[in-house]
Amino acid sequence: MMKKLKVGVLGATGMVGREVLNVLDKRDFPIETLRVYASERSAGKELETRWGTLVIENADRCDYSELDIAFFCIGSSWSKENWPKAKGSGCIVIDNSSAFRYEDDVPLVIPEINPGAIANSDLIANPNCTTAIAAIPLFTLHKRWGLKKVIISTYQATSGAGNRGMAELEASTREYLEGKEITNEVFQWPIAFNLIPHIDTFQDNLYTKEEMKVTWETRKIFSAPDIPISCTAVRIPTMRAHSEAIIAETEKPIDPDEFRELLEKTEGVQVKDDPGNNIYPMPLTASENFDVEVGRIRQNIVFGENGVEFFVSGDQILKGAALNAVQIGELVAKQKLSAQ
Amino acid sequence: MMKKLKVGVLGATGMVGREVLNVLDKRDFPIETLRVYASERSAGKELETRWGTLVIENADRCDYSELDIAFFCIGSSWSKENWPKAKGSGCIVIDNSSAFRYEDDVPLVIPEINPGAIANSDLIANPNCTTAIAAIPLFTLHKRWGLKKVIISTYQATSGAGNRGMAELEASTREYLEGKEITNEVFQWPIAFNLIPHIDTFQDNLYTKEEMKVTWETRKIFSAPDIPISCTAVRIPTMRAHSEAIIAETEKPIDPDEFRELLEKTEGVQVKDDPGNNIYPMPLTASENFDVEVGRIRQNIVFGENGVEFFVSGDQILKGAALNAVQIGELVAKQKLSAQ
Repeated sequence: MMKKLKVGVLGATGMVGREVLNVLDKRDFPIETLRVYASERSAGKELETRWGTLVIENADRCDYSELDIAFFCIGSSWSKENWPKAKGSGCIVIDNSSAFRYEDDVPLVIPEINPGAIANSDLIANPNCTTAIAAIPLFTLHKRWGLKKVIISTYQATSGAGNRGMAELEASTREYLEGKEITNEVFQWPIAFNLIPHIDTFQDNLYTKEEMKVTWETRKIFSAPDIPISCTAVRIPTMRAHSEAIIAETEKPIDPDEFRELLEKTEGVQVKDDPGNNIYPMPLTASENFDVEVGRIRQNIVFGENGVEFFVSGDQILKGAALNAVQIGELVAKQKLSAQ
Repeated sequence: MMKKLKVGVLGATGMVGREVLNVLDKRDFPIETLRVYASERSAGKELETRWGTLVIENADRCDYSELDIAFFCIGSSWSKENWPKAKGSGCIVIDNSSAFRYEDDVPLVIPEINPGAIANSDLIANPNCTTAIAAIPLFTLHKRWGLKKVIISTYQATSGAGNRGMAELEASTREYLEGKEITNEVFQWPIAFNLIPHIDTFQDNLYTKEEMKVTWETRKIFSAPDIPISCTAVRIPTMRAHSEAIIAETEKPIDPDEFRELLEKTEGVQVKDDPGNNIYPMPLTASENFDVEVGRIRQNIVFGENGVEFFVSGDQILKGAALNAVQIGELVAKQKLSAQ
């Protein structure tokens, strides 16, 4: 009989934590015991799960020696503060925040791309949603034709700001339709029927941190530190799937039809590219889809035979967060269980 | 005393026609008499305007010899059918549709860029909204640094599909919030809390016509037939302002600060570029603004010192249609009145 693992989800009441529980269930993760943790405020309350009614424990007081895998789904500063408590305990931490992504000795992993990077690390970082959603088709391109330049413009959902972001979109939309004044707390400006070209903080180079994450993380995951990648990150009034318009110049002349065929065989991707029948990626269909939708594949008329462009939509909470984290967990589980 | 002109608005009950009336009023167009025309169905009905209550006439039966200027605001096939009736009448037609934009002997005009192109033509085409909104900042770049490559991703409002488009966004949003099935007629898919990477028909090269219009029209307006320009055109759930993320490679190394300073002095542009104070272009502020908002100006990290990127938002019905048409009308008026 297959051995199973003791798993903890820290931040189990938040948007990503809840979805981690959902994905652990859907993918039949080999769980011996599941424990859920949240802030002191939620500790003691009960949470219904597939593994029964669980009592929420205080995340700040987690004893990591009692866990094999811990999913950190709280936030960057909490991760920084709490990782030292887990370090050396034997528990492997999969961190959803950006706290450790850019540290040289912390692997940043998309299982379809660089599964080997987890090695024996006891801390593994989960990439930013925008990076994760673009990365698989981009890596397919990179392996076959070599990426020379990448230009991305994003269409990001309000779920990027968590449950509160989605709730604010809904509330402010109602206010708009009722002719009331539109309020905003989560976003810098009212998001109903608007867009905001500003996600995360501005850097010295006038890109936002959200935009630079795509550059930094894609390079790290691809082990290709020199690929020039730029991004414009824009929040739009959608719920939970991010979309991206991606234009690439390749080292070798690229055949868009061959790219489409390769994507058909690529795990984690669903090709949605039948424009004659109005089939292309959209948040409407990408939401709650484990796969990232890719379509609008065409030779780019600026870069010519070395150019391609395409459009992707992917669930921000799934491949952009919880699903990728659980997939990393599966790699860890395989390693742990084969070592037992 | 300044002479005035006999002006006709054909399609006066539609979204663009109504806005042409509004802009003629706001800009104090030199009107002697104003006449309004629409479909046979609307003919005989009354329309309240600044010039009094006008009786709508049948557009199909317009006698162009009674007009100095006619604004065609109905649609491409109507324009094609009706232009021959106006030709040779002495009336100058300003056409909002795409019917004649690509004909060599028909000027395509943005008054801030190529006013001289109107010459003595009796038919002048008004550009596509997406082209018009990007063109002024792009031309500022082109004049000073030379455009080598341009890559555009758009965030287009539902007003691009007229009053019906905006009404469908509102209705489908209400359906979503009330938990009802979301219907769609105007757009290919439900637009509420969704986006659709498909505007106008697909071409053989798998770009849409909307995307190719930006390439074709920008080249024609700039008299620069060789600039490589690509576009991804995406409909998003906003009302009446289009936004665009624009990345350009320039012939000469570009200084983004100098670009910003040049834009500050450019007519038709409002620089909104103070990220530290959350100031950047947005539909929220660009709607009903005669100027196109430009911001997020920064050196592009892919093209390096020859690269720049920026973000624009402009009112789709104003600079994207009615305002630019009336501005062309002002050029025509100047010519007509100086000839009297």
